[in-house]
Amino acid sequence: MKKYAEVYDYFKKLIENGALKTGDRLPSIRNACNILSVSKTTVQNAYFDLLADGYIISVNKSGYYVTEQKSVSDFKSEKKEKEIQILYDLKSGDADEESFDIKLWQRYIKSALRSQGRLLSYSEVQGEADLRQALSDYIREKRNVTASPDRIIVGAGVQWLLSVLCSLVKDRKTVSFPDKSFVQGMSLFEDYGYDVHTRYKDADIIYVSPSHMTAYGDVMPMKRRLELINYSEKTGSIIIEDDFDSDFLYQSKPTPSLYALSGNDNVVYMGSFSNVLIPGIRISFMVLTQELAKRFEASKHKFAQTASKTEQIALCQYIRDGHISSQTRKVRRHYTSKARLLFDNIKKELPDAAVTLGDNGLRVLINADFSGDISDFEKNKISVSIIKFEDGKITLSLTPSAIKECDIPKAVAVLKSILN
Amino acid sequence: MKKYAEVYDYFKKLIENGALKTGDRLPSIRNACNILSVSKTTVQNAYFDLLADGYIISVNKSGYYVTEQKSVSDFKSEKKEKEIQILYDLKSGDADEESFDIKLWQRYIKSALRSQGRLLSYSEVQGEADLRQALSDYIREKRNVTASPDRIIVGAGVQWLLSVLCSLVKDRKTVSFPDKSFVQGMSLFEDYGYDVHTRYKDADIIYVSPSHMTAYGDVMPMKRRLELINYSEKTGSIIIEDDFDSDFLYQSKPTPSLYALSGNDNVVYMGSFSNVLIPGIRISFMVLTQELAKRFEASKHKFAQTASKTEQIALCQYIRDGHISSQTRKVRRHYTSKARLLFDNIKKELPDAAVTLGDNGLRVLINADFSGDISDFEKNKISVSIIKFEDGKITLSLTPSAIKECDIPKAVAVLKSILN
Repeated sequence: MKKYAEVYDYFKKLIENGALKTGDRLPSIRNACNILSVSKTTVQNAYFDLLADGYIISVNKSGYYVTEQKSVSDFKSEKKEKEIQILYDLKSGDADEESFDIKLWQRYIKSALRSQGRLLSYSEVQGEADLRQALSDYIREKRNVTASPDRIIVGAGVQWLLSVLCSLVKDRKTVSFPDKSFVQGMSLFEDYGYDVHTRYKDADIIYVSPSHMTAYGDVMPMKRRLELINYSEKTGSIIIEDDFDSDFLYQSKPTPSLYALSGNDNVVYMGSFSNVLIPGIRISFMVLTQELAKRFEASKHKFAQTASKTEQIALCQYIRDGHISSQTRKVRRHYTSKARLLFDNIKKELPDAAVTLGDNGLRVLINADFSGDISDFEKNKISVSIIKFEDGKITLSLTPSAIKECDIPKAVAVLKSILN
Repeated sequence: MKKYAEVYDYFKKLIENGALKTGDRLPSIRNACNILSVSKTTVQNAYFDLLADGYIISVNKSGYYVTEQKSVSDFKSEKKEKEIQILYDLKSGDADEESFDIKLWQRYIKSALRSQGRLLSYSEVQGEADLRQALSDYIREKRNVTASPDRIIVGAGVQWLLSVLCSLVKDRKTVSFPDKSFVQGMSLFEDYGYDVHTRYKDADIIYVSPSHMTAYGDVMPMKRRLELINYSEKTGSIIIEDDFDSDFLYQSKPTPSLYALSGNDNVVYMGSFSNVLIPGIRISFMVLTQELAKRFEASKHKFAQTASKTEQIALCQYIRDGHISSQTRKVRRHYTSKARLLFDNIKKELPDAAVTLGDNGLRVLINADFSGDISDFEKNKISVSIIKFEDGKITLSLTPSAIKECDIPKAVAVLKSILN
């Protein structure tokens, strides 16, 4: 064990058992060194973690003080409050701690922070050049998407990238989404004055997510992919292919991307790393058509880069060293095994319900009789996506991404008590 | 000196003097440990830095290879190419390496990376709760802006925040900017269908940056501030107060914020940390009016957070520990002393030109006769903002933010040779 962790625990215990009370001042760093016979760095690191975890607060030039125990929870994000209310999260896309080697990521961030010269300047509007090169190589190898780095735009999240896209394609008026689940995308287009609906045959822009077609986790069959490409080539409409979750397909083999299938210059390809890495890292990218890339180049001065430069530098090297691929395999194994476990448990515990495992192997669907109230879920501290609830029948979509494996049987017991 | 730096230098020299050539394989980490009698971690860290600096590339499962020397420059960002062309940057807002204690920031990032639990979930749409609390305290103390954390929205850059704002204030049609310099802001409003102009008396939304009113670096006088507030209260227009550079005012004392001066609920206050910290960190924030904060709350699901969660956590603690204030003082001292040096040098070397130091003490303006061509600047590897060029007279605005102090006399010599 590292010494600083011992010092951390020492003070944490004093605070938790009340020996150090709210407002009490901690020994100065120098005094703590003497009392505990450790180095200054050790104490500093321990105090740092106590600060980060909200046990103490540092008052400028005065010292370190124990916080109100109430305020410890204020220090955590609002999320924390929700977590207290929700014991079993079967809804969010959050990650569980086993899914990501955060120590490895830390090394890359530390290395990026050493590129001091680069951090002093604003990030390239389009995204760092070396990251775009690494992305270009990665998607060519992985998804057969061939695009030079100058057609790739990096940004903090798909919503931001869509707003850049909206600014580039001003001559279009209608956009279609496969269903109404992607609210952030739909409302963005609405804000830009688009007519937004779900009929792709009436749309200038067709947003699809072929590996994750609906809230049910359907994968778009090959036949529909070709239909869609044919249609867009005939009408000149632009397809936005949001390829998220494609990495996770396991039951069906990964299907070719629309971008690779289409011979024409009418597919904008989008990808993101929030689900392969951790949600806290906000880096997405899009591959523009040649025509749109030209427009971007001509109006570059209109945009600002939103993604963290440090994280861009770190991600570039992380991809180059091949970690994305191994991380993807790890997450896929982990999430699909949780989904399978959830599926098996529900089958066993709720034999009367119709249970299916989504195409992409990441979601479980339940169709069951239900005479209760939808607030029953929250009351029982479980969160689920309710797809449909009418005539005494309920359809639930469950995502076992955030829940720990060991909690799955407990969550299913709660579901059983609610649905029966 | 740390051992890994010695190992780094060892290989760097071998590569630079050609003992290790393009495509040559470096010893495996284990072999390098034996050859150099150092630990595995030491070699790993050294290889990491060689990777980050583009000297070597890691080929998945195969080993580390020396890159093409040409490709070393590919590894750097596009910026690098520009830097080679431009020797004296008197235009950009980039930072110089003396302005920021990056080691200290690294400690906060490392500490944030240890909050593993928080990094697993998506960031709060509105920004991390603890950061918003810290921001609320900071702007109250610093700028007398009193706003509870639930009115603060965090995001990656002012442009993104403006797009959130546009989405919230749908009933408005016209916006005014003080001049045409803030292209990213103006074009965003245009994209949202606004009529954009520079006459505030015809606008539903009035964008101002009182501490940095024009490209000349003027500070808005008190009288104009009160006029503007009066006008907006009478007409119900919204003022967007972009408070960037307010921290840097030195000649005039910091003037009160419009937000603090206005008794009504009609000022949206914006701030950013890119210029106090380093441009690579993308965190800005805005304080919504009560009315707009309500709308945001009701339509939260429409937005995604764009700022890096790691950097939000780090910044929160950095602010709490009082470093923003000391960093601000440091940057202000450093930049204003550079501006003063530039001003004095130009006065001396170009006695016939009209030279002024901008109100905010950060810019130098030159009015001079000029019979050359504006491409002369780039040809002479110096970048400047040309405000006006007609009838043989040129007006330049110079920002000595990125340039090193020791380069200022050389840059002025170049300016002299161009202008004479």
